[in-house]
Amino acid sequence: MKEIKGTIATPKGFLADAVHAQLKYKNLDLGVILSEVPAAIAGVFTTNKVCAAPVLLDRKIIQKGSAQAIICNSAIANAVTGKQGFENALKTQQLVAEKFQLKQDEVAVCSTGVIGVQLPMEKIATGITKLSKAGQAEYFAQAILTTDTKTKTINLEGEIGGKKVNMAGVCKGSGMIHPNMATMLAFITTDANIAQPLLQKTLTQLIETTFNQITVDGDTSTNDTVLVMANGQAKNKEILEGSSDYLLFKAMLGKVCQDLAQKIAADGEGATKLIEVTVNGAPDDLAARMIAKKIVGSSLVKTAIFGSDPNWGRIISSIGQVATFEVSDIQLKLQDELVLYHSTPVTFDSVFLSEKLKEQKINIVADLNSGTGTGQAWGCDLTYKYVEINALYTS
Amino acid sequence: MKEIKGTIATPKGFLADAVHAQLKYKNLDLGVILSEVPAAIAGVFTTNKVCAAPVLLDRKIIQKGSAQAIICNSAIANAVTGKQGFENALKTQQLVAEKFQLKQDEVAVCSTGVIGVQLPMEKIATGITKLSKAGQAEYFAQAILTTDTKTKTINLEGEIGGKKVNMAGVCKGSGMIHPNMATMLAFITTDANIAQPLLQKTLTQLIETTFNQITVDGDTSTNDTVLVMANGQAKNKEILEGSSDYLLFKAMLGKVCQDLAQKIAADGEGATKLIEVTVNGAPDDLAARMIAKKIVGSSLVKTAIFGSDPNWGRIISSIGQVATFEVSDIQLKLQDELVLYHSTPVTFDSVFLSEKLKEQKINIVADLNSGTGTGQAWGCDLTYKYVEINALYTS
Repeated sequence: MKEIKGTIATPKGFLADAVHAQLKYKNLDLGVILSEVPAAIAGVFTTNKVCAAPVLLDRKIIQKGSAQAIICNSAIANAVTGKQGFENALKTQQLVAEKFQLKQDEVAVCSTGVIGVQLPMEKIATGITKLSKAGQAEYFAQAILTTDTKTKTINLEGEIGGKKVNMAGVCKGSGMIHPNMATMLAFITTDANIAQPLLQKTLTQLIETTFNQITVDGDTSTNDTVLVMANGQAKNKEILEGSSDYLLFKAMLGKVCQDLAQKIAADGEGATKLIEVTVNGAPDDLAARMIAKKIVGSSLVKTAIFGSDPNWGRIISSIGQVATFEVSDIQLKLQDELVLYHSTPVTFDSVFLSEKLKEQKINIVADLNSGTGTGQAWGCDLTYKYVEINALYTS
Repeated sequence: MKEIKGTIATPKGFLADAVHAQLKYKNLDLGVILSEVPAAIAGVFTTNKVCAAPVLLDRKIIQKGSAQAIICNSAIANAVTGKQGFENALKTQQLVAEKFQLKQDEVAVCSTGVIGVQLPMEKIATGITKLSKAGQAEYFAQAILTTDTKTKTINLEGEIGGKKVNMAGVCKGSGMIHPNMATMLAFITTDANIAQPLLQKTLTQLIETTFNQITVDGDTSTNDTVLVMANGQAKNKEILEGSSDYLLFKAMLGKVCQDLAQKIAADGEGATKLIEVTVNGAPDDLAARMIAKKIVGSSLVKTAIFGSDPNWGRIISSIGQVATFEVSDIQLKLQDELVLYHSTPVTFDSVFLSEKLKEQKINIVADLNSGTGTGQAWGCDLTYKYVEINALYTS
């Protein structure tokens, strides 16, 4: 596979557009992805017990397993909006179905933005009438942004079963809320031919090591959603589990998920640095991932990285907080410099290491010498800007 | 019971002192608490798998159940210091035993400060020689501080079994580390007559609703320790479980624990406000406590409070993240103002509420309408100052 330029509509048989529906003051805020034919659709959603109305709706679509459109608005999350909120999500779905002559239950709905505010349905309705199959697909990535400072996209091309297969991903996510902006939405399209149950199984697996391993502020939003549509228009032979075709497909989907996840972490609210934590030598992969995520989510580690401070004690303390096994033989490297060996402090040049910690990508690698489990997690530093962004008034 | 003025040595038969052992540049950094007779000693310790050398030592003393002294240094945590660190803790214990003619295993040892640095044993030894039974007991509260901005003490007096009983508490704790300062140490003395097993049982229970319900930055240090010494010098009849005497003793110990815990939260690194979260209507108390702690620990809630922002969506989202039951009927009050009723947003005067959120004590009360469980948690706001304190160089 290789990375190429493109949009969410680069895979065959997909279209996309976005408009300004006046939910935001001036930026694009309503986008649609369309497939010319019904596509297999897989999805994973927030585990937050308080989930937004569109999440309730989309769960049913995933159960059914096919869809032809995704409509997404930013600025308003349609969460904690009660019965009216669910009716508004249904109405949005209905309007999109009418506009593009689709069955209503083939339209997935996503929202991100302020919690506790109802969608202005007249604006939504007017916006939907302006969406067009002849629209600009690259606009979609802009329309879903909230506090994000940049669009986040990736396009891959691979050959599966002798056919060129395309995959595209776009996502948003910066902090959970500002004011109350929902964290993370990701949309992935592919023209690969794969059955929905296998697509769902693969996505569910890959989420664990990608999107679920990023943290900006430790909060899980009410709206988190990842949707994958596969419409089969590459006309490859159906991808079956266990085949070499499947391995390649899974690698492509994994690459897209990981790339988008890292882009969210790097664009975390107020972030100046991307932090990648790798944990080796844990009893199993799950333990390694939990520890990696604890380290990258620690406010103390995050502030130390912001200050380019080789303050490794905070990392070791984070490990100890979530380890359920003995951690008495730790090796720790910061930016490839060894600071702890067999759990004994190593003398290092702290001025030199501080300089290396000023780079934009920070690597923390811990080896726990307790097994073969490995895991990674991604996050960002905690800065004055984060506090500033999140202390501003909603009102 | 009533609150009185006093020191950690106000309960009968206790003495205390502190000196400058040159671990810090100029402030007091080494203190001792002595009981004239062996006291029942109870303790709870950090759950961090990477725990400091003195914690290992003190766990054995608690098993034995009696002690006559506590020696505590600040500035250096003696954590992640390997075999040498444990030997230094033992040596400290031995020096204090010799100085005050005690059995070595009657001396508990505590440290708080930088992780990964060995104690300078010559300075410790010299410091110990300067400690005196004729010393100033009020110095002790100063000697254990790290990034704390003030001493934290409380004294209570009550009548148990016809005798005046005194109880005193002192603690330190501000953030986990700066640079790498260990969070939380608390020492409680009482002249009450109570057997060690009941003292331990009572402390273990009370910890759950007091010290374990505070959070400054979500990190559990390598050194957290709470020790209670009861030396029986009030000469009251032994306090037995189930008696009215016991209820009063438990109320006193609970008051001391809660008071010290709140003082730590209010003095959190960079804090400008104490936040108290009360959760009612959970299925059980444990669920209520977990939810309260999640709310008070959320960076998004903490920054909103710093900004006096009535951003209630963040609170609801926090509830949803840890609730394992349906939360579809929530009532929420901020500073006594209703903002959500039956999970439906209530129109409120946001300018007025923002003003009320500028107070130094913030109350958040959530009723989940799912049972009779209640719980509280305490924390502080997340400020520019927190980032500044924690981004500074260790080196």
